[in-house]
Amino acid sequence: MPSWWCENAWLPPGRVAARVLITVDDGRVTEVKEGIDPPPTAQRLTGLVIPGLANTHSHAFHRALRGRTQAGRGDFWTWREQMYAVATRLDPDNYLALARVTYTEMALAGITCVGEFHYVHHQSGGVPYSDPNAMGAALIEGAAQVGVRLTLLDACYVAGGIGESLTPPQRRFSDGDAVAWAARVDELSDAAHVRIGAAIHSVRAVPSDQLGDVADWARKRAVPFHFHLSEQRAENDACLDRYGVTPTRLLADSGALGAAAVAVHATHLTAGDIALLASSSTGVCLCPTTERDLGDGIGPAGALAAAGVALSVGSDGQSVIDMFEEARGIELDERLATYSRGTFVAGALLDATTVAGHRGLGWADAGQLAVGMRGDLVAVDLASRRTAGGGATAETVVYAASAADVTDVVVDGNVVVKDREHVRLGDIGATLQAAIGAVVR
Amino acid sequence: MPSWWCENAWLPPGRVAARVLITVDDGRVTEVKEGIDPPPTAQRLTGLVIPGLANTHSHAFHRALRGRTQAGRGDFWTWREQMYAVATRLDPDNYLALARVTYTEMALAGITCVGEFHYVHHQSGGVPYSDPNAMGAALIEGAAQVGVRLTLLDACYVAGGIGESLTPPQRRFSDGDAVAWAARVDELSDAAHVRIGAAIHSVRAVPSDQLGDVADWARKRAVPFHFHLSEQRAENDACLDRYGVTPTRLLADSGALGAAAVAVHATHLTAGDIALLASSSTGVCLCPTTERDLGDGIGPAGALAAAGVALSVGSDGQSVIDMFEEARGIELDERLATYSRGTFVAGALLDATTVAGHRGLGWADAGQLAVGMRGDLVAVDLASRRTAGGGATAETVVYAASAADVTDVVVDGNVVVKDREHVRLGDIGATLQAAIGAVVR
Repeated sequence: MPSWWCENAWLPPGRVAARVLITVDDGRVTEVKEGIDPPPTAQRLTGLVIPGLANTHSHAFHRALRGRTQAGRGDFWTWREQMYAVATRLDPDNYLALARVTYTEMALAGITCVGEFHYVHHQSGGVPYSDPNAMGAALIEGAAQVGVRLTLLDACYVAGGIGESLTPPQRRFSDGDAVAWAARVDELSDAAHVRIGAAIHSVRAVPSDQLGDVADWARKRAVPFHFHLSEQRAENDACLDRYGVTPTRLLADSGALGAAAVAVHATHLTAGDIALLASSSTGVCLCPTTERDLGDGIGPAGALAAAGVALSVGSDGQSVIDMFEEARGIELDERLATYSRGTFVAGALLDATTVAGHRGLGWADAGQLAVGMRGDLVAVDLASRRTAGGGATAETVVYAASAADVTDVVVDGNVVVKDREHVRLGDIGATLQAAIGAVVR
Repeated sequence: MPSWWCENAWLPPGRVAARVLITVDDGRVTEVKEGIDPPPTAQRLTGLVIPGLANTHSHAFHRALRGRTQAGRGDFWTWREQMYAVATRLDPDNYLALARVTYTEMALAGITCVGEFHYVHHQSGGVPYSDPNAMGAALIEGAAQVGVRLTLLDACYVAGGIGESLTPPQRRFSDGDAVAWAARVDELSDAAHVRIGAAIHSVRAVPSDQLGDVADWARKRAVPFHFHLSEQRAENDACLDRYGVTPTRLLADSGALGAAAVAVHATHLTAGDIALLASSSTGVCLCPTTERDLGDGIGPAGALAAAGVALSVGSDGQSVIDMFEEARGIELDERLATYSRGTFVAGALLDATTVAGHRGLGWADAGQLAVGMRGDLVAVDLASRRTAGGGATAETVVYAASAADVTDVVVDGNVVVKDREHVRLGDIGATLQAAIGAVVR
């Protein structure tokens, strides 16, 4: 049985223990012993070992946009045109290559599980591939090659906006309607490293009379169910115009809220929206680096947490892949908005990136270093130029560390990253350049 | 004569050139040739080579606070108590040790010149050291050992607040009055790697009838002159209460504004304040990571730039030492506040961190890769997990790179960092821990 001796480890319900031996059998933690000397057979992990990080909201192909959408003026909507230009060039082969390098960057950052919000389903123009799930299969294969778990949140996307038809770049996102979407997704299966989940892209992309179909499908199968929610004020305005209610209320009335549901962004909410999310036990995935990049605004993170909503984080647009930066971004942006510090304690932010994130992706058995949980370990260097001097605390990890401080990553008991390098894929600089070069002009 | 062949280089007034040979003699650039093959005698720099970065606002000892002020609730003022606890424990020896490691982290991040805003002058309690400039000398020595240039912005700090006497931790900051401050600072001298500048800590710490004394001293000597300005709304409120004007107007009326002046933070300004700064050619140093950390709020960066104010950046509280993160923070926080993208182009943000920063620190001959300028070169890796795929652009450096992507740093023609390691000091993890351990509990 492989075992890891950790100089320090972050153990539930939220404390640092020293000299911890973690034994893993068949991918599960079988023993956690504190305060012991390193046995000769154990692999040693220095620094502070935390549970595997969950990246609850990813669009893998956006990695190709990093740095490339930063010239010129604009907003979310002009950025979206640039993003569509890349989406138009994807095919199953280059999507696999791009997903593989993006997920490798994630693994190097300590991410053991990715929630891929997937809506580029068909050929450009909308004709299905011979395998109608070829694009989803590429994402699943990419994660498998990297050695991280994946929740494929297959998104229903059938309209170009509220009351609007699809634009040409959007046609490949659409199955036509929610029934056809469900028929296609029914062909996808869970696997050892894969969960199939459902998504409504947004109330922009699914008409109100089809929201319930997607929600019903997800509820019947008891799978994770995600949706973009109120990232932009224009979405709220259009929803109020057409339906007379906020997007949150519209989703609530369609049966989309609930303990398996995760609303992504949730930036522009009313007090009533927050109450609806909280009372239904719907989670919220915040994407601070993306919301800052796209000028979405600062969401009501403090109010959501105060209402009891479980928060998680996602790298979303991949402008940065660093769960520590996402985690501290929740608190730091709250500080900018409220002029006060400490709405969130570091341990709560670490929970958002680990146990809460995994739960939102359908892996209730991951995200804690405890017996019976999956054997995911992430070692964070406490002696780097960034972290040295902070001590073995959650505060050092959340506020001082960056993804570059992740030295070792174990997923389901398998060593995926060792000494800051992916054990199978090595240096990814050249393959990243090639994979991105294939889809940008 | 040493020369560097750069795969790509950022040349004035703001373009990327390929295959550039830069020759340096006696610390100055003597030749810049584009589009040539690498000569065998030249040292090769891959990626994109940019000018040396200027960190326009630093409190070196705050490095000891990183991660350590993040527990519990509070605001700027409660954070200040924690900061004072460290300030109380400083002495010339442990200050040198701490400055040396902090400046090493800066050098590794591509910072070739530091503006140290220095106000911990005397022994705890306020009695001068036998050398009354022993603490400033420690900072100067620290920079010398690291191999970066320093502008010592020696700050006058004689009051505990507007109309308030000094608290015990503040006593060591004070010379008693501005005249005594000037007498002490007169004993400091420029050196090859050092400029002596002046500072008013803030309108909180210097009564209005002494502001002019400091301003006069700085003007007569034609040195850089900095002051904290309107970081907190409470400062504005107290100033309006006592003097009936904003801090900016008070400083203007005291003769403190001008082309050699740099206002630090400038977070809470009126339209009139912005006009005063612009019409007087006063610069503004923004510290985005600190303003976010301390919950200062989002300053009017766009309005300042539109008015023609020269912007620079500083790492200030050292919660992060990464000039690229500071630079993009200007634009990203502007996006959060305005819901639009592209107020600043990447080239302008790079200028803020290089040529504008150096000018604000009194080094008008640094911050550009051009003949006659100082031989400061910073190579940024374009093939890392973060930067690969972005291309050789200012956008990749500002938005995709982190300080960890700086591979090589040359200061005044001397190689200070090579292959991501400080050539003289090596790995600084252990020394960082020791230096911080000496001043924290």
